[in-house]
Amino acid sequence: MRLACLTSGGDCPGLNAVIRAVVRTASNEFGDTVIGYEDGWEGLMDDRRRDLYDDASIDRILLRGGTILGTGRMHPDKFKAGLEQIKENLKDAEVDALIAIGGEGTLKGAKWLADNGIPVIGVPKTIDNDVNATDVTFGFDTAVSVAAEAIDRLHTTAESHNRILIVEVMGRHVGWIALNAGMAGGAHYTVIPEHPFDVADICKAMERRFQMGEKYGIVCVAEGALPKEGTMDFSEGEEDQFGHKTFNGIGQVIGDEIKSRTGYDVRTTVLGHIQRGGTPTAFDRILATRFGVHAARAAHNGETNKCVAVHGENIDLVPLEAAVGELKTVPQRRYQTAQALFG
Amino acid sequence: MRLACLTSGGDCPGLNAVIRAVVRTASNEFGDTVIGYEDGWEGLMDDRRRDLYDDASIDRILLRGGTILGTGRMHPDKFKAGLEQIKENLKDAEVDALIAIGGEGTLKGAKWLADNGIPVIGVPKTIDNDVNATDVTFGFDTAVSVAAEAIDRLHTTAESHNRILIVEVMGRHVGWIALNAGMAGGAHYTVIPEHPFDVADICKAMERRFQMGEKYGIVCVAEGALPKEGTMDFSEGEEDQFGHKTFNGIGQVIGDEIKSRTGYDVRTTVLGHIQRGGTPTAFDRILATRFGVHAARAAHNGETNKCVAVHGENIDLVPLEAAVGELKTVPQRRYQTAQALFG
Amino acid sequence: MRLACLTSGGDCPGLNAVIRAVVRTASNEFGDTVIGYEDGWEGLMDDRRRDLYDDASIDRILLRGGTILGTGRMHPDKFKAGLEQIKENLKDAEVDALIAIGGEGTLKGAKWLADNGIPVIGVPKTIDNDVNATDVTFGFDTAVSVAAEAIDRLHTTAESHNRILIVEVMGRHVGWIALNAGMAGGAHYTVIPEHPFDVADICKAMERRFQMGEKYGIVCVAEGALPKEGTMDFSEGEEDQFGHKTFNGIGQVIGDEIKSRTGYDVRTTVLGHIQRGGTPTAFDRILATRFGVHAARAAHNGETNKCVAVHGENIDLVPLEAAVGELKTVPQRRYQTAQALFG
Amino acid sequence: MRLACLTSGGDCPGLNAVIRAVVRTASNEFGDTVIGYEDGWEGLMDDRRRDLYDDASIDRILLRGGTILGTGRMHPDKFKAGLEQIKENLKDAEVDALIAIGGEGTLKGAKWLADNGIPVIGVPKTIDNDVNATDVTFGFDTAVSVAAEAIDRLHTTAESHNRILIVEVMGRHVGWIALNAGMAGGAHYTVIPEHPFDVADICKAMERRFQMGEKYGIVCVAEGALPKEGTMDFSEGEEDQFGHKTFNGIGQVIGDEIKSRTGYDVRTTVLGHIQRGGTPTAFDRILATRFGVHAARAAHNGETNKCVAVHGENIDLVPLEAAVGELKTVPQRRYQTAQALFG
Repeated sequence: MRLACLTSGGDCPGLNAVIRAVVRTASNEFGDTVIGYEDGWEGLMDDRRRDLYDDASIDRILLRGGTILGTGRMHPDKFKAGLEQIKENLKDAEVDALIAIGGEGTLKGAKWLADNGIPVIGVPKTIDNDVNATDVTFGFDTAVSVAAEAIDRLHTTAESHNRILIVEVMGRHVGWIALNAGMAGGAHYTVIPEHPFDVADICKAMERRFQMGEKYGIVCVAEGALPKEGTMDFSEGEEDQFGHKTFNGIGQVIGDEIKSRTGYDVRTTVLGHIQRGGTPTAFDRILATRFGVHAARAAHNGETNKCVAVHGENIDLVPLEAAVGELKTVPQRRYQTAQALFG
Repeated sequence: MRLACLTSGGDCPGLNAVIRAVVRTASNEFGDTVIGYEDGWEGLMDDRRRDLYDDASIDRILLRGGTILGTGRMHPDKFKAGLEQIKENLKDAEVDALIAIGGEGTLKGAKWLADNGIPVIGVPKTIDNDVNATDVTFGFDTAVSVAAEAIDRLHTTAESHNRILIVEVMGRHVGWIALNAGMAGGAHYTVIPEHPFDVADICKAMERRFQMGEKYGIVCVAEGALPKEGTMDFSEGEEDQFGHKTFNGIGQVIGDEIKSRTGYDVRTTVLGHIQRGGTPTAFDRILATRFGVHAARAAHNGETNKCVAVHGENIDLVPLEAAVGELKTVPQRRYQTAQALFG
Repeated sequence: MRLACLTSGGDCPGLNAVIRAVVRTASNEFGDTVIGYEDGWEGLMDDRRRDLYDDASIDRILLRGGTILGTGRMHPDKFKAGLEQIKENLKDAEVDALIAIGGEGTLKGAKWLADNGIPVIGVPKTIDNDVNATDVTFGFDTAVSVAAEAIDRLHTTAESHNRILIVEVMGRHVGWIALNAGMAGGAHYTVIPEHPFDVADICKAMERRFQMGEKYGIVCVAEGALPKEGTMDFSEGEEDQFGHKTFNGIGQVIGDEIKSRTGYDVRTTVLGHIQRGGTPTAFDRILATRFGVHAARAAHNGETNKCVAVHGENIDLVPLEAAVGELKTVPQRRYQTAQALFG
Repeated sequence: MRLACLTSGGDCPGLNAVIRAVVRTASNEFGDTVIGYEDGWEGLMDDRRRDLYDDASIDRILLRGGTILGTGRMHPDKFKAGLEQIKENLKDAEVDALIAIGGEGTLKGAKWLADNGIPVIGVPKTIDNDVNATDVTFGFDTAVSVAAEAIDRLHTTAESHNRILIVEVMGRHVGWIALNAGMAGGAHYTVIPEHPFDVADICKAMERRFQMGEKYGIVCVAEGALPKEGTMDFSEGEEDQFGHKTFNGIGQVIGDEIKSRTGYDVRTTVLGHIQRGGTPTAFDRILATRFGVHAARAAHNGETNKCVAVHGENIDLVPLEAAVGELKTVPQRRYQTAQALFG
């Protein structure tokens, strides 16, 4: 048999580990061959394919961030208009099943192809951990680790200078990175999109610290954090594509507000792109590898129109539609666990 | 209310994160106070206790490896003989519930105390990941990360010198660390206690690599690995306390055998204690913190004689007896997933 | 004898390693005792002192970022007005020599005290590496390592998305961090204050990469970078205290300009405070420790009014005035070495 | 012009950074081309050469441990017998200058070639830091960092279990790695080949710690450590090629002796090969890059029969014979600085 792979959407540590595991498993277990399409759906449509050999070079990509196939974003309309071209290209390359590695948008595309007769396996990928139907995805642990390590470093600077430090981390729609990086990094308050904040609460937590004799504080803020209605002037907020108000530079906004209300020395750091690149953690390499092995097996065994997922100790196959519903948000009980450590 | 904590058994990254989370949650959510007993059961029996305050110093232990309370090992007979003393000490200190953080032996002790009328909460701890009734425990991710990073470094040396490198990792009875570190580190063969090895298979995998043009190989070996009966001279094996044959220095034994069978240049590295100490990974800090928060809540709410555990995305309370049955071993399907990447 | 220590100026990894080495050496080699003043010159003036014991707690600070003594900044006028108070406090505490650990401003203060009859030893500290009279100072290697690791992570994101990534690092007056982090991180262009840039040159280097088939680029920019006169609109520049024009957010300015000139997708990341905090690298722990040992010896032996420094393989004592002249800037030949790797 | 590169001797982090810098500088500054010989002198003699292009693939090796050219060891007699073949191969490949990257043995070979009319530039490489005529070489900082990080992890285990931990690090003839890793890792005693040890001194230092209330100790031992004559039974020592007595497994020997003399719980860990492989530290990438840039310039400018070296802040060219004299050992004053921190 012949399998095909592509990676689509944002960069994410572990993409190469999936590709490697697909190629090695296809070859080792079944003698199948694998090709890769470059730059996501675009390469599939333009037929930019290359052979992926089970050799030393595929083995070496395990630790490498990014994706050797490149990635891309394509508008759904353009994508749908290309269905016949895609079918022709896959037929021409004698592809028996397509493994699409990507986030929610990619999995939606995969489902649409599956609904239109193309055998597809989805592999969920998101540093944001917002894909339903799987406990977790690869890339998330790396993002959390990088952010937590940054917070570790900020503690000593904040403490030496008696400062409040606001650290803004990724997470426009869900707060998983902020929740976990804040918990791992020992932040004294964490703000996530799922739980609108009141700056008064943050100030109170900081003031309690100063009263206890501590002279600094760390506040971890998801970039999609939103103020509780009526607690702050909304004028700077804009509506995003989902119709939600968003504040650009919310970390700075919160920092300025804390400074003006408390008089403390407050600084803001935006972690930015370092959260999504580079060598994956051991955890992400393992999860990505297991996803890749199981995706190759599912593809070979014709268990298509499904998505690999992890539940507890096991890798499962779930229907593609289960993975593309709502975003997985931080439930209230998880935020309450974080709150037990605030202040 | 007043809670007490102790840590018992081997060192493990994340112990301090549990202690901190217990203290902070008890104080923040309930206004409860917490004391700690030093050096495990011994300190409980000798009444070596100290107050643990919800202050800056408890906050700072989050990143610190080891345990600020110290740990110890006590023979079960001695432990059981001390029941009345333990009861008296807990009564004297006005302890309403005891949180025991430790591995299988500790949890057995906790269960025995619970059976004898002492309100106990268990928090499972093991770098080996061998505790049943929980998907995973803290400390394990750190051990795997350290071992995987070591394997990363060994690749370039092995490759530059055209060598087979055997790396022996922890795991006397179960192969979880070897399985995961080997997978994360891209080892070309992994040997675990649950699946007796045949050196001929390892040699075959290495030879295939050299035929493919690769000039080196990495073999990851759990310290409790055992040869398949009849495939190797057993004379060096000894019986351990469970009546299993064990080979001391099994990594070296396997390395010597590969060398003598293939003629390749083979070296062995034993990772040793670096796998169990030091700052926990972000993953372990988060899991340990969640365990601590839930243990404090269970203790406060009288949900005793239970053990905290993680299943998928949730922290649960399971009966203490569920955690102390058999060791959790690597199932055959997990080893098959690893095998897909061998050679 | 009795020695005193204080840390002053910005946070810097390795401050605690110096303090520890002073305390241990004073005790081990001479039986001297050591006290510390809190929050820099302020604590010296307000007589906020505490004993520093040669015990386990001093040993544990070796790896800790920041400074256990706290730090502060004091206006030179206020400082000079407090001379008599300082003398009285040192006399009252029976201090035989004062070890002042800090950057250029601190060393200037130390020199002024020395000129006024107080036996002082300076220990140079700066993450910026801008102190003359020493090859290097502790803190710098950590800052470079953190920045280089961040650049490592940015490569894969830039590459996966075909982007130019601008990464702005610390260095308002000197370009050492940018020079070294850019070189270690494999940046494709580096901009430093000592060498005014022409955006046209950066664009040319990026275009050459795209022509060669590469689809991304990394530009490392010191925060104090300045455009060559006449090459860019200066309207956004402001004058700093030295009368130099500065651009706030120069990374963003350069990124916007490259984008508008080339049409490439360009993003900017500002590394910020993570460069100056946290656990020091092994290199910085060693240098800081050697500085501390030699400072304690110089203090005990009455070789005061001097500053410790490293030259090649040796720790020397140099006159305090040698350390407080001009800032040490990146010489042209060092920038030329970096240029050999551009594009 | 056309330059050639080869790497010879043991694996060392930074070899690839040198190769990259040579190729980029030759191309960028002079338009020169570069070829590489595989597997050290052997590849030069067997004419196994390949072109090294100034492109993306050469850029990517900056972070990679090991050497893309492979390395090898060749007996000096065989090497010398091949002179005519070497000359012929270099002539056939139109090589104007040869850049030999390696340790003392390699530089000796380079000098012999230079003495026989071949234009050679040496680039010193050694994780052991034992090359004279340069303050330091690349690879050493990485080895020290890896060892120090391992010692960091051992502290918490030793402390939690009230143990003495012996950690044996690399250094058969010189103690630089032990000296610096012990200092960076906060070891409580360090033993190096240059300063024969008396176990009684180590025991005394450990006992003082236990008397002070500390319950553990870390002893860092260079693999080439030797007992002071008359202080220990020498029967296990063997003579090495230099006629020095050596103890195989000296860490274990010391550990056993401490245990038997003091009764403490003592364990030994041998760090092994992880010290010499993997991604170089930022420091080593920078030093290796600077060496490569200057080697390419020296080769182009005909400044041959020299070796690049670093002295203080500058890269120099020194005569090849200066680099191949005696090993650079740890001077007594450096060990005295370490001793200030013992106990």
